[in-house]
Amino acid sequence: MEYGSKVSIDYESNKFIGTLIESSDSKIILLKLDSGYNIGLPKNKCKLKIISKPKFSINKTTSTESNKSLPNITIISTGGTIASEVDYKTGAVTPITKPSKLLQKLPEIRKIANINTIQILTKFSENLSIEDWEIISESVYKELCKENIRGVIVTHGTDTLHYSSAALSFSLQKLGKPVVFVGGQRSSDRGSFDGGMNLICGLHIANSDIAEVVTVMHGSSEDNFCLVNRGNKVKKMHTTRRDSFRPINSVPIAKVYPNGKIEKHSKHVLRHSNEPMLLNKFSDKVALIKYYPGMNSDIFNYYSSKKYKGIIIEGTGLGHVNSNFIDEITKLIKEGMFIGMTSQANYGSVNPYVYSSGRTLFNHGVTYLEDILPETAYIKLSWILGNFPESDIKQKMKDNISGEYSETSHPNDFLY
Amino acid sequence: MEYGSKVSIDYESNKFIGTLIESSDSKIILLKLDSGYNIGLPKNKCKLKIISKPKFSINKTTSTESNKSLPNITIISTGGTIASEVDYKTGAVTPITKPSKLLQKLPEIRKIANINTIQILTKFSENLSIEDWEIISESVYKELCKENIRGVIVTHGTDTLHYSSAALSFSLQKLGKPVVFVGGQRSSDRGSFDGGMNLICGLHIANSDIAEVVTVMHGSSEDNFCLVNRGNKVKKMHTTRRDSFRPINSVPIAKVYPNGKIEKHSKHVLRHSNEPMLLNKFSDKVALIKYYPGMNSDIFNYYSSKKYKGIIIEGTGLGHVNSNFIDEITKLIKEGMFIGMTSQANYGSVNPYVYSSGRTLFNHGVTYLEDILPETAYIKLSWILGNFPESDIKQKMKDNISGEYSETSHPNDFLY
Repeated sequence: MEYGSKVSIDYESNKFIGTLIESSDSKIILLKLDSGYNIGLPKNKCKLKIISKPKFSINKTTSTESNKSLPNITIISTGGTIASEVDYKTGAVTPITKPSKLLQKLPEIRKIANINTIQILTKFSENLSIEDWEIISESVYKELCKENIRGVIVTHGTDTLHYSSAALSFSLQKLGKPVVFVGGQRSSDRGSFDGGMNLICGLHIANSDIAEVVTVMHGSSEDNFCLVNRGNKVKKMHTTRRDSFRPINSVPIAKVYPNGKIEKHSKHVLRHSNEPMLLNKFSDKVALIKYYPGMNSDIFNYYSSKKYKGIIIEGTGLGHVNSNFIDEITKLIKEGMFIGMTSQANYGSVNPYVYSSGRTLFNHGVTYLEDILPETAYIKLSWILGNFPESDIKQKMKDNISGEYSETSHPNDFLY
Repeated sequence: MEYGSKVSIDYESNKFIGTLIESSDSKIILLKLDSGYNIGLPKNKCKLKIISKPKFSINKTTSTESNKSLPNITIISTGGTIASEVDYKTGAVTPITKPSKLLQKLPEIRKIANINTIQILTKFSENLSIEDWEIISESVYKELCKENIRGVIVTHGTDTLHYSSAALSFSLQKLGKPVVFVGGQRSSDRGSFDGGMNLICGLHIANSDIAEVVTVMHGSSEDNFCLVNRGNKVKKMHTTRRDSFRPINSVPIAKVYPNGKIEKHSKHVLRHSNEPMLLNKFSDKVALIKYYPGMNSDIFNYYSSKKYKGIIIEGTGLGHVNSNFIDEITKLIKEGMFIGMTSQANYGSVNPYVYSSGRTLFNHGVTYLEDILPETAYIKLSWILGNFPESDIKQKMKDNISGEYSETSHPNDFLY
């Protein structure tokens, strides 16, 4: 019985079809049904027929010796589903505390690279703070500085993976090696576990010439390829699908296949041997505000009273808010607050010149941030405040520092 | 020279290819280039060649007589791009103050229905408040109550069109006739004007058996069909594209073609002759908060101090926030605040049972709102507080009142 196989089970007068998953109880067959639910059945009463073998096989042997012909890649573990499994007592997913346990589940990655694992955090990513971005940045930086390390992988929960990848796209300047964020939408004990293929594809990218902070996650709901997206131009666009990480206002840098084949789709920074630079301070005096009809403009006064230095607005459409916000916004800008405008429409660029609302905001000092993602704008502002004098904010927010602004528009990344 | 034609112009030693648009100066030819920019050229120095005729023709004759064989449809105008044009002095788009002016530009709609126009607002939709939802609801309600009126169209700016359509999906209960929200992404003087076709398709839907509040907007970037989306399951997903209004966690109710053909794609409420019910109060003591790493949980105290009654959180992934928010959230729930959880991932459902973070929030009284859109959840909460006793909030938020929860999942509405 190979886990991940599609099977048909006759139990009493019922027939169940699903994917075989590992059970913590040897007397129970655990089956993931197509509905997404798991069912446990007593093994001695089941008649099992294999429909198809797993597309992505997980075998159980492991080797630890280092192979000089293989690249050295460091995996930095922060937690998340990719390093977690179901607790069969409560049914909830809990973190695996040792990254080596994950590698035991995926022994084939030893054939791709010599792996060094470092565990710095064991957190689901919704619990990561901006201090964690500083910790992750520093750990990755230290590995990048080692001459024998070809690239670094960060395993990370998917909830805020795109926030952290955007943070590191700024904190690691002059980057000459790949930094690859990998996560899993399904835990490693499930037949639909995606983290294994993501990790294998991530290793191929960590060994490639793509010297950027990227995410490597499933590109389709099949186990056929991953998308390599720039870390600051990607969002989690579905709560559960394995192919949730989609490029926004961009095309993927590449497609990567589990066999190591890499198809390039857009320009990227090439691997080089210069030392990277660590600029890993982030300021917590920055807020991201999504505008909505009925919002009270007093929220701006709240952030002003708390001595915030900057606010990124997720405006509507081309970058608008209710015109009765103008007074508060103008007051804050006069007090020295940076106000940046992005759009809640997900795709496309803001533009202050089309409508009178935009012109007014622009004329009162709001900075329109073109096609930068709201989350990326927030993180970039936090990073600028952490590392540069306040007088640099406006110019640095406009500079294209890490590919956060598109050089060309990508109308076809938006499809029904 | 027919506006909307694709033309090639030789001017001095340059060649320009673009779409002919109406110029306010008869000596100037105005051309919309493929880049999106407009260029004005002196007519007497241009050599013009027509490449193709406009796909959607705008002619200039108009008729006003009523035809008894046609349905009576009321168009309620609130403003927005669909009722606006470029001010060629400033280059910005400004509202047309009289809806009849829009109808003059689209005389063919007189062949589809007898149109009665009412102008209640002249606002870009980013300036609409929740009081405006009350005004629009009441105006639509009055028309719906007239026996001879077959359906109502609301023309509306696109920035918050989906917020208003969601609001009316709650404020107009027991709806027996179609209420159709129509907008335009490009103003009526432009060759790429989309509001005309949207209005024509909207009229066909206003005359159909779809007795729901829906949006009718371009379904592709061509002038070939519109999508009919349920008003509370749709978002503006691009800042500029004409096909920006996409179904989220749903499939469109129908496709509608300018010739009147309607293809049904999903279930809907059928036209009936019972009177509708107006419940159009909305509370302003409700907030929508998008969670992000680095957010300070003190924001919850702010809303509590301002006597807010409910907060909808756009959490990460399956509906999570940093676990250090638990104390503030628990305190607020104990004080009587309603806290509802949705996801910022755009697509998919929240679920408290998969991860320990979700279980904890759920166990402390956070209400998980399945696949309802964050914007819709916010509006629904505002509406419940406006019209029902506070003790009903939790149950009413869980009830599927106007199709805001999906009965089945729609995995394929999410595509790269």
